Amino acid sequence: MPDIYQELCKLADSGMYPFHMPGHKRNLESTPLKGAFRCDITEIDDFDNLHDEKGLILEAEERANELYGADKTFFLVNGSTSGVLSAVSCALKEGGRILAARGSHRSFYHAAYLRRLEISYLPARILSPFGIYDSITAEDVKAALEKEPDAEAVFITSPTYEGRCSDVRGIAKICHERKIPLIVDAAHGAHFGMGEGVPESAVLQGADIVIHSLHKTLPSMTQTGLIHVKGSLIDPDLLKRFLRIYQSSSPSYVLMASIDLCIRYMVENKRDFVENLLKYREKIEEGVRNCRKVRIMSKNILQDPSKVLVYVDFGGMTGQQLYDILREEYALQPEMSGDVSVLLIITGWDTTEGIDRLIRALNEIDRRLQDKEAKDLSGMTVTGFELPKVREPLSMAWDMAKESVPLEKAQGRIAGEFVNLYPPGIPLLTPGEEISGKLLQDIAGYIQEGRNLQGIEFYENGENKGIIGSRREIICVKQR
Amino acid sequence: MPDIYQELCKLADSGMYPFHMPGHKRNLESTPLKGAFRCDITEIDDFDNLHDEKGLILEAEERANELYGADKTFFLVNGSTSGVLSAVSCALKEGGRILAARGSHRSFYHAAYLRRLEISYLPARILSPFGIYDSITAEDVKAALEKEPDAEAVFITSPTYEGRCSDVRGIAKICHERKIPLIVDAAHGAHFGMGEGVPESAVLQGADIVIHSLHKTLPSMTQTGLIHVKGSLIDPDLLKRFLRIYQSSSPSYVLMASIDLCIRYMVENKRDFVENLLKYREKIEEGVRNCRKVRIMSKNILQDPSKVLVYVDFGGMTGQQLYDILREEYALQPEMSGDVSVLLIITGWDTTEGIDRLIRALNEIDRRLQDKEAKDLSGMTVTGFELPKVREPLSMAWDMAKESVPLEKAQGRIAGEFVNLYPPGIPLLTPGEEISGKLLQDIAGYIQEGRNLQGIEFYENGENKGIIGSRREIICVKQR
Repeated sequence: MPDIYQELCKLADSGMYPFHMPGHKRNLESTPLKGAFRCDITEIDDFDNLHDEKGLILEAEERANELYGADKTFFLVNGSTSGVLSAVSCALKEGGRILAARGSHRSFYHAAYLRRLEISYLPARILSPFGIYDSITAEDVKAALEKEPDAEAVFITSPTYEGRCSDVRGIAKICHERKIPLIVDAAHGAHFGMGEGVPESAVLQGADIVIHSLHKTLPSMTQTGLIHVKGSLIDPDLLKRFLRIYQSSSPSYVLMASIDLCIRYMVENKRDFVENLLKYREKIEEGVRNCRKVRIMSKNILQDPSKVLVYVDFGGMTGQQLYDILREEYALQPEMSGDVSVLLIITGWDTTEGIDRLIRALNEIDRRLQDKEAKDLSGMTVTGFELPKVREPLSMAWDMAKESVPLEKAQGRIAGEFVNLYPPGIPLLTPGEEISGKLLQDIAGYIQEGRNLQGIEFYENGENKGIIGSRREIICVKQR
Repeated sequence: MPDIYQELCKLADSGMYPFHMPGHKRNLESTPLKGAFRCDITEIDDFDNLHDEKGLILEAEERANELYGADKTFFLVNGSTSGVLSAVSCALKEGGRILAARGSHRSFYHAAYLRRLEISYLPARILSPFGIYDSITAEDVKAALEKEPDAEAVFITSPTYEGRCSDVRGIAKICHERKIPLIVDAAHGAHFGMGEGVPESAVLQGADIVIHSLHKTLPSMTQTGLIHVKGSLIDPDLLKRFLRIYQSSSPSYVLMASIDLCIRYMVENKRDFVENLLKYREKIEEGVRNCRKVRIMSKNILQDPSKVLVYVDFGGMTGQQLYDILREEYALQPEMSGDVSVLLIITGWDTTEGIDRLIRALNEIDRRLQDKEAKDLSGMTVTGFELPKVREPLSMAWDMAKESVPLEKAQGRIAGEFVNLYPPGIPLLTPGEEISGKLLQDIAGYIQEGRNLQGIEFYENGENKGIIGSRREIICVKQR
């Protein structure tokens, strides 16, 4: 069966002249983006239509569906963002109550705003001192649903950005006893279920909707993903309505070709892909085994082998310091720096050269570390923490009149905007929540560490100076 | 000043190893999409962040802004769709009233649904027999605003899909007298204002928000666009909120590089681009001047020179017949077939070979045409037409219980879904509107012509058969 890429190439070679969009007319002479332009068309005959698929794209979606084992699978060209917006929009009625993990991606909060949902949070726990959200247990969900019996859907993220997995099977069972759907944001878990040594896919664990980014851990272009539906609690036609709403009516055939190439590749090579991934993972773990201080977080804690969380035990180095050394001295670009750790992503498409360079770097860093007195990181603890007090519902607060307030005067005020670190974009504060002294302390710490903090404005002489300004302000709901 | 593409190439050549997303790791050996993969990264240091832009992307947006002359310009990677959703969401309060042209793109109706807006329509007129929506006049808007004084914003499309332009300047003046913003969906007009011989850009005519697709008429990848804000009626921060909501939090750097390359190209070459476009246009017009029956719609009627609407005078051939001959016999792929015409898009990136092939084809078709008795198309008329009766507001009706009803029994029922031809995706019917006998006749005609009709289901033996089924059904609001 032909794939989208092959058909696009055939078209490009066919001599068919394009008197249609896009305006570049596949004229490759004047562009450096030749490969992309060559495959970039609009919905002409024989090339189907993402929003009303009946041919080539439907067949490609069915291939993806077969790989993951859902009832129905749709392509995403506006990222997992569009998948989360669509999933939440179709899973419960406007104004309904949704039970969600606090560590949800921003797009979840956006969906809740658009659909005027009431959010009830699952208990939040953090793996200290790493600042990583803990997984969700079936007991968490059971207890929360007993407290909030009118919840119409449950939303969790598994694996998390850092690779921690929840008991999707157990949670799905609890949800289904109440006949409410479970949405799993598995944006980071598209490689799950692809072979032995990676966790099972949320699709086969009973989730009703699963969202996969393809670009995060599989070989596909950024902004591509899949959304899967299984079971009878979700109406696929209603999901499709929202996918049509939240995705471009001119979807890129280059992105769709990339999705299809990725799926075809995985259908044929998933075993090799996972074997490579595990081999690289094993190699890194083996390569730092004799380090005195450099550590890789165990797979018992972060179950996704793609996520390599590196830290210096006994706190000899902050996450940002480790990040800077890897980047500037070894030309190794990590995914993110945390308080005390650095997150690296590996896949089956890494190279031995890259992995070896990382191991060499980590060993050299280990040797350079002095035996200085520092915080003991060997004993990780799981700490529950209180979420900010909700003073106004998100859907109301975000639309209220706002004012910018210096951080030192913001305690007790109501947040008017989201505040988050990026990546991963999980809110520290959502509109409508009370700004606590503790949170202001955390924010001051992030500023000092130079972390990428979104939602705090930096001013100097009345002018917004971006990250370099000296006066910090936070957007609050205007006081009457 | 470096552009995004240059910086991405420098990064690819720098030896910096990616321990981050995307999962393909710029490993070009195993993919045919080499050029795209090479430039495909995530938000790492020095590469800015589309949703919180301060560096490279901000500079690129400022370049685009300077080209068009707005106050502020933002990139779109989820197409004009995300621009229209964001514009409508930020221009008026939830639940407010918006005055709109009926011939608006589907995304306008989607925004109205999400934000629970009341839609009041501007008068609808059609250029018969071409089935093309007429432009909007300042008088239309003035009269409508007098009838609907609580309208909080006006939404028009100019140029239309077929290239017909409205008096944006006059309409903006009427809106501004009432201090309400004018949103212009100029998805098809990104090349306007780029030189003599193309119409002026809506940005400089006083619109408050203008949405441009870049891929439609300029050399950029499909799914790329710009949104411009001008004046004080729109809060750019609120617009930005909605752009963050409706666009992927993992925007493609390939799409962003394509936008930036397109803008740079236009900054340096807009004169050549427009000259080429006009030269091709002139050549086509000249080339068919001696045809007895083949006609090109005059620029007095369709002001955009990029849109070449071809038809056979005296109705010797339907649009679909002309389309099929161009495609199958001459390997010329048109943009769309209408009832009696075919729409072709030309740009400054066409080739002389392509244009010559078109002229040869049209002349051969003209010679083959028999002198048969047929409908006279030479006298075009502008006819007002009545819009379907609104029985339930869109935002309510789309969420009501539905049932599928055979077309022959649907007269008088309330539509439960959108029905439209694609392209261009302008609704014939929106949820909540009454299904008239006239509309059912039109639909029967479209089915007979084999047009791409969305929203009508085709069944055979109880099974949905897509386009080939024999029983036609329409989704209606369930009767109580």
